[in-house]
Amino acid sequence: MSNTAVLNDLVALYDRPTEPMFRVKAKKSFKVPKEYVTDRFKNVAVEISNRFGEDDSETVTIDSVPLPDLADILTLGREENFSLFIPKHRNLSAKLINIFLQAENPKHLLSIACYAHDRVNPYLFIYALSVALIHRKDTKSLKIPNQIQTFPDKYFDSQVFSQGKEEMTVVPQGLRRPIEIPRDYTASDLEEEHRVAYWREDLGINLHHWHWHLVYPTDGGEIVTKKDRRGELFYYSHQQIVARYNFERFCNALKRVERLTDWQGPIKEAYFPKLDSLVAKRAYPARVQDMTMQDLDIPGQNIKVDVDDMIRWRDRIYRAIADGFITATNGSKMNLDDVTGIDILGNIMESSELSPNRQLYGNLHGFGHLMLSYIHDPRSHHLEPFGVIGDFTTAMRDPIFYRWHAFVDDVFQQFNGSLPRYTAEQLDYAGVQITDVNIKTPNAPDNEFRTFWQQSDVDMSRGVDFQDPGSVFVRFTHLNHEPFSYNITVNNTGNGVQEGTCRIFLAPATDERGNPWLFNNQRVMFVEMDRFKVTLRQGQNTITRNSTQSSVTIPFERTFRDLDTNRPAEGSEELDIFNFCGCGWPHHLLVPKGTPDGFKAQLFVMISNYADDKVEQDLSGSCNDAESYCGVRGGKYPDKRPMGYPFNRVARQGADTLQRFLTGNMIVQNCRIVHSDRTVRPRS
Amino acid sequence: MSNTAVLNDLVALYDRPTEPMFRVKAKKSFKVPKEYVTDRFKNVAVEISNRFGEDDSETVTIDSVPLPDLADILTLGREENFSLFIPKHRNLSAKLINIFLQAENPKHLLSIACYAHDRVNPYLFIYALSVALIHRKDTKSLKIPNQIQTFPDKYFDSQVFSQGKEEMTVVPQGLRRPIEIPRDYTASDLEEEHRVAYWREDLGINLHHWHWHLVYPTDGGEIVTKKDRRGELFYYSHQQIVARYNFERFCNALKRVERLTDWQGPIKEAYFPKLDSLVAKRAYPARVQDMTMQDLDIPGQNIKVDVDDMIRWRDRIYRAIADGFITATNGSKMNLDDVTGIDILGNIMESSELSPNRQLYGNLHGFGHLMLSYIHDPRSHHLEPFGVIGDFTTAMRDPIFYRWHAFVDDVFQQFNGSLPRYTAEQLDYAGVQITDVNIKTPNAPDNEFRTFWQQSDVDMSRGVDFQDPGSVFVRFTHLNHEPFSYNITVNNTGNGVQEGTCRIFLAPATDERGNPWLFNNQRVMFVEMDRFKVTLRQGQNTITRNSTQSSVTIPFERTFRDLDTNRPAEGSEELDIFNFCGCGWPHHLLVPKGTPDGFKAQLFVMISNYADDKVEQDLSGSCNDAESYCGVRGGKYPDKRPMGYPFNRVARQGADTLQRFLTGNMIVQNCRIVHSDRTVRPRS
Repeated sequence: MSNTAVLNDLVALYDRPTEPMFRVKAKKSFKVPKEYVTDRFKNVAVEISNRFGEDDSETVTIDSVPLPDLADILTLGREENFSLFIPKHRNLSAKLINIFLQAENPKHLLSIACYAHDRVNPYLFIYALSVALIHRKDTKSLKIPNQIQTFPDKYFDSQVFSQGKEEMTVVPQGLRRPIEIPRDYTASDLEEEHRVAYWREDLGINLHHWHWHLVYPTDGGEIVTKKDRRGELFYYSHQQIVARYNFERFCNALKRVERLTDWQGPIKEAYFPKLDSLVAKRAYPARVQDMTMQDLDIPGQNIKVDVDDMIRWRDRIYRAIADGFITATNGSKMNLDDVTGIDILGNIMESSELSPNRQLYGNLHGFGHLMLSYIHDPRSHHLEPFGVIGDFTTAMRDPIFYRWHAFVDDVFQQFNGSLPRYTAEQLDYAGVQITDVNIKTPNAPDNEFRTFWQQSDVDMSRGVDFQDPGSVFVRFTHLNHEPFSYNITVNNTGNGVQEGTCRIFLAPATDERGNPWLFNNQRVMFVEMDRFKVTLRQGQNTITRNSTQSSVTIPFERTFRDLDTNRPAEGSEELDIFNFCGCGWPHHLLVPKGTPDGFKAQLFVMISNYADDKVEQDLSGSCNDAESYCGVRGGKYPDKRPMGYPFNRVARQGADTLQRFLTGNMIVQNCRIVHSDRTVRPRS
Repeated sequence: MSNTAVLNDLVALYDRPTEPMFRVKAKKSFKVPKEYVTDRFKNVAVEISNRFGEDDSETVTIDSVPLPDLADILTLGREENFSLFIPKHRNLSAKLINIFLQAENPKHLLSIACYAHDRVNPYLFIYALSVALIHRKDTKSLKIPNQIQTFPDKYFDSQVFSQGKEEMTVVPQGLRRPIEIPRDYTASDLEEEHRVAYWREDLGINLHHWHWHLVYPTDGGEIVTKKDRRGELFYYSHQQIVARYNFERFCNALKRVERLTDWQGPIKEAYFPKLDSLVAKRAYPARVQDMTMQDLDIPGQNIKVDVDDMIRWRDRIYRAIADGFITATNGSKMNLDDVTGIDILGNIMESSELSPNRQLYGNLHGFGHLMLSYIHDPRSHHLEPFGVIGDFTTAMRDPIFYRWHAFVDDVFQQFNGSLPRYTAEQLDYAGVQITDVNIKTPNAPDNEFRTFWQQSDVDMSRGVDFQDPGSVFVRFTHLNHEPFSYNITVNNTGNGVQEGTCRIFLAPATDERGNPWLFNNQRVMFVEMDRFKVTLRQGQNTITRNSTQSSVTIPFERTFRDLDTNRPAEGSEELDIFNFCGCGWPHHLLVPKGTPDGFKAQLFVMISNYADDKVEQDLSGSCNDAESYCGVRGGKYPDKRPMGYPFNRVARQGADTLQRFLTGNMIVQNCRIVHSDRTVRPRS
């Protein structure tokens, strides 16, 4: 069997993940050794093996290999929901990842995976297999299917599935119509928070968040966890999520999200996800209005944590920030300096196994998610599963995600506020002045972004178990924008060619009352739009940069990539980097929604000295086109500056407005984001 | 086409009710006129008609008839949940019932029903068709399928369906194993209220409650609503539910259920139903701990009611009781006397269209259900459906049902307390003395009931849409008891043969603290066990009565009857009375659970003078073997006494204990209910 064939067989395991191995998967019939068949299906084994070869599927014969010990891993039931916030689940996934990593070769891995497939919880199985495939040298070129196809239940209104089944059963293949998800199904406009539901519930945003945490696992050993500046990237990518959310709120006449700091009072935001878990065969529980966080005691998941524990962890972390150092497990002090401090703090807060002292600083961010996710049944009296906030894949749908992360971010900002301020000299780039910038959108006035609604289709049939094959599409509506470009005029008055990093950010022009910003409030509102290297010849330079080149986003097609189309050639560089590149902000949400009459925003552009930004590494073959929030696969974060630079610190004395903050290598352009309330039909 | 054939075709409409008419139903292919096909499937019509005749199904050609106007009826969406507590839904069902009632003959009805089937909400369709079939002269002999087979989603843990689909798809017919519902899936024993979940969530109890309300619709015109003493029966059947629930609570060391009288404070009982609606394609929402009833404003269902409205209705009803009369719509006074008062009050409270003044007295019982069912989203901000308490089929699962009905019952008790007390002479039956009674259970000491756990299987495949045919069974565990008999010794000292009504009740021997009862507290705890006519010759008579003869219950086989087995012969009396007889307390819950060491209870037996009990009517061909809670089909309630007699009134002066209450024609026997915690496997 060729290596390529084995890789394709591994991909077939993502097809209808709850169906047993003896069912045809992606047109492959797996012939597994007798001892691989579970007790449940032993009695039908004869009947089953007779079925082989009856259809046009390809037979894949699986070798018998020494079987791994799954005893621990099976303590998570096949029909339970799975969450990487639950320490027990993290440990189980770390074990399974390591079983998969230790397989001698892909064929061996395939055999072990086939054995595990019918036994292990399907969410856990797919997660652990994905992490292993991404991190194994001999499988990293394999294309992992989009999670939306494997587990569509985590993304789509539960009604879609019955409608899809009806369509698949009743209507012949060629005549099927897409199942349309209504734009407002989780709430009505009577609910203020629902105004930004289109953003929270966007499929691309939630896929990005899942992919981010797939690329940055918290547990499983250094081979999967230890990555350059990952703690800092945890801080920055989530800071940007909050900033982007706030921007979207402003566009919808909502004020900034309030930090969730009262952990003992009622939470006013309710959320009714209207999602069913196809594995757990239960709906995701809702959170009604005015619930209060409670001490958790969930014996089935080994979770026991008090609100007071959370308060103690929080206060110890604040104390460490005030002290300027943390205490490691062995009692030694580790300074929180201006280079690595934020990274250490990120590992502590998240927390991953890279945290220098989980005992002392706990698991503040993770247990916050858990406490909120079990708020409806905190002592498991009612045997309830966790809510959407307890699962990376679904967490961003819930308004409480942003209140929680606004608190988390505030801890990081507390630390950033303790760092030395950048001087004007540090910020400036002698000899480089930006003299002009404008935004060009075709058929629009200068400095205008244009947004609208776009419909797109995605095939859900791979994730719907126990149906006849054949596609059925789900049609959803999402925000989109017209492509645009930045045109930047830069004067190089220095001697010779200069290299720089162009950094582009966008923020609302005023606060939610229409008042001018103080710099220190506006700086945390800036969302990164792009970052790229520029080479400046002497004299005037005109830089044109297209929106689609953004270092923040991945193209729409990659977010919703279909396994069956546009598949890169085997062995190509493109294929090699495919999985990592699934991480990236969805391009269709690069620009906030704006308003019909034009939301006023400020575009900030800076060119910093590349000599101070440069990271020495060979990026050929790496996927770095969404590096800003996702980093570079297997490499260093490709910008030496602290993430969020230059907005990551409190401004120097006197720079109390954005204008006063500017040095010669920066410029601000007032602009407008105009939203057109029309819906464009699918492209295809 | 014979009439019998048409009736069978009508029954086929209960098969997989959400699947369109062009799908094979119960091995019948319906060929409907072109204009019956919905727009949605018009484009596949050619493809569909080509399929006819490809399988072994029988073709049923449907006549084209003038089409009914369904415009109003279609304002309830096909994927909404349906509730007879919602006035809009009641009105829509009344309209559809009347369309079905007005069809000229069964063939005409079949055609109209086929047209409506693919358009109307499936729950509404099946309800209206059922009421029409029960009340039409030419269709009343037709067997309506058990609701558990048509809508199993309203009865089974949602996990059962995915498991069942897996079984149906993966395992060949002969090798399928039943899907087992765990005994404790809605909560754990940490939750006190869960101790009686086996009873609240019993399939038979919920089927009974559905069937009761199917037989007694609240709206649809007098042809379906006006039935002898229906208001009184509403009171009595629900009073007995509360009494039986309290008995069950005592057996599980829980105190009596508290009336829900604080309508503005938090409700401590939470309930997580873990049911999915297969029509609404949504989970039934949960009610978390400490929620408070809110003013309802559900525009989509035309519901607008304040808690204050409820308080006004309640206070007007209390006022009417105090006054001894109600005010009718025309302003006239109607006395609440000791014969018809309770019936009027029942119609007011329920309320049905028989209420003499819905404007003044409102819809207290019904809107209480609604207010509780929308407690999680009272203003529909989150577009949530109602909870289980908002649907007759599922309401009895929720602990709050009993708190609400304890309040409702208390209003009736307030009225009963205002009635003249029975004198000893009125209660006595001169010349008839009961000298002894004992309970005989085989292999048990005298006066001992024996209960245990029983498993049973029911086929769920008819209710699972879009699957290949073939059975799959659900196995559930329910309470059961050993058959027993009463042996009653009666002395007739009068002249000649005497006729009497033997009334048997059972109540806990003491209150929840083990203290002796005051009669007025114990009397509302008595649950009716049986009521039957006796003929007493002069001298000593020994009456033996088997538990299976109870006038309260229907046999297990009838509760869970399977359409395909034990089908009565066409045209037989048995068939004629089949539908009505689906109403009846499930026999397996005749006896409360008891305790392992023997729960102490008191059996009360009375023989009243048949001359005062007798109702003149011909009962031949009627189903009256569960008459106590369900009445007699098309006839009068077969007992002239007020329902609940002799416990329906406050006792006469001096009769402050049960012993003192006794007259010569009554007897009390101390007994024990012994529960054995073993599980008996299914019978078949």
